[in-house]
Amino acid sequence: MKISELSRTTGVPVASIKYFRRQGLMPAGKATAATLAEYGQEHVQRLRLIKALTTLGGLSIAATRDVLTAVDQAHSTESALGAVSYALPVPVAESPVGDAGREAEIGSAAEAEVADLIAAMDWQTPSTSPHVEGLTAALRELRRLDAAYEPGDLVAYAELARSIAGLDLDRAAAFGDPEALAEQAVIVFALSAPVLELLRRLAQEDQVRRRIAGGDTGTGAE
Amino acid sequence: MKISELSRTTGVPVASIKYFRRQGLMPAGKATAATLAEYGQEHVQRLRLIKALTTLGGLSIAATRDVLTAVDQAHSTESALGAVSYALPVPVAESPVGDAGREAEIGSAAEAEVADLIAAMDWQTPSTSPHVEGLTAALRELRRLDAAYEPGDLVAYAELARSIAGLDLDRAAAFGDPEALAEQAVIVFALSAPVLELLRRLAQEDQVRRRIAGGDTGTGAE
Repeated sequence: MKISELSRTTGVPVASIKYFRRQGLMPAGKATAATLAEYGQEHVQRLRLIKALTTLGGLSIAATRDVLTAVDQAHSTESALGAVSYALPVPVAESPVGDAGREAEIGSAAEAEVADLIAAMDWQTPSTSPHVEGLTAALRELRRLDAAYEPGDLVAYAELARSIAGLDLDRAAAFGDPEALAEQAVIVFALSAPVLELLRRLAQEDQVRRRIAGGDTGTGAE
Repeated sequence: MKISELSRTTGVPVASIKYFRRQGLMPAGKATAATLAEYGQEHVQRLRLIKALTTLGGLSIAATRDVLTAVDQAHSTESALGAVSYALPVPVAESPVGDAGREAEIGSAAEAEVADLIAAMDWQTPSTSPHVEGLTAALRELRRLDAAYEPGDLVAYAELARSIAGLDLDRAAAFGDPEALAEQAVIVFALSAPVLELLRRLAQEDQVRRRIAGGDTGTGAE
């Protein structure tokens, strides 16, 4: 198809398609004349993926390029998942730092907590993993806010996260073609966090209604 | 304490504190003279919460005000959780719409899928819940991307989400004071999604390493 038809099919303006091409996010079409190129189904799929990453995933063009590079280089379920997981960040913003002494204390406590958790779960995770740093940052922020949670709470959530990861990998393993696999991995990583959070909210809503209906006023007397 | 000390303690500039006051995000200090006010521990906590909502939660000032209003009006675990959950959105961006016919088909399919899921889970959820619309939007986007998943996959994730919601509500029920409860609910809602996602990523990483070490090349032959 011509670029105008590619634009109609995907809803992406011609100028944006050309921009994505120049930025190296999308392979060239097959040249049919000096100023004409033929695009195929792979360009439609790639454009949809770029849209998802930049809108639903909230990624910059540079970050999108990193993810697409990882996708193109992946040759197995595991390496695709691993590469995409490392490339696609989990955003954790942190409050401006206040008292330096308290910050140092909070930092050490959060690091120890993550190390203890990884040991308790027997997780094979290098300390250089971006997810180790991400979780440490999230726990620092919880401590800054004096969030009330116990180490045992974290283990309970980690056990459920392990079950979720098992579902994720089983779904990924069902794919035969590494390219399709890698692209699905990007979709799953970009979209599964909001889906899971929405399922959790719906489940909370149900349990809130049942507990109110049951006359439990939430005073801790359940 | 004076406003200068409040600023030092929290790391929030005096100008920002005054801005939050004018925007109605924070109660006034106790007036001690025409131009002086005394601030207490409740202002320190409130400022930390505002910081978390606007940085880690990524909320606008207007959205932060809505959440704080809900927090101040909550009188029980359940109403605090419910109000905060409705006020604190789960962001779901959607791709620009392409073909109108396909969009209509995608929209109907996603709505039916959410209705079926809620029925299958026996969830008590009004159709006006923002989470119903949020999940429908997320599923529309998955369909636009031709994401490969089965209705059964969604139920499996929903079952785990139910367990997570149970942990959430048990933790909330452990609080006695509704004000502290409501504030903790905000913290948990704002911070627990990235924490859960990071735990899931760490668990995936562990399972990826184990499967690669086990020689499973991810061709679906597990």
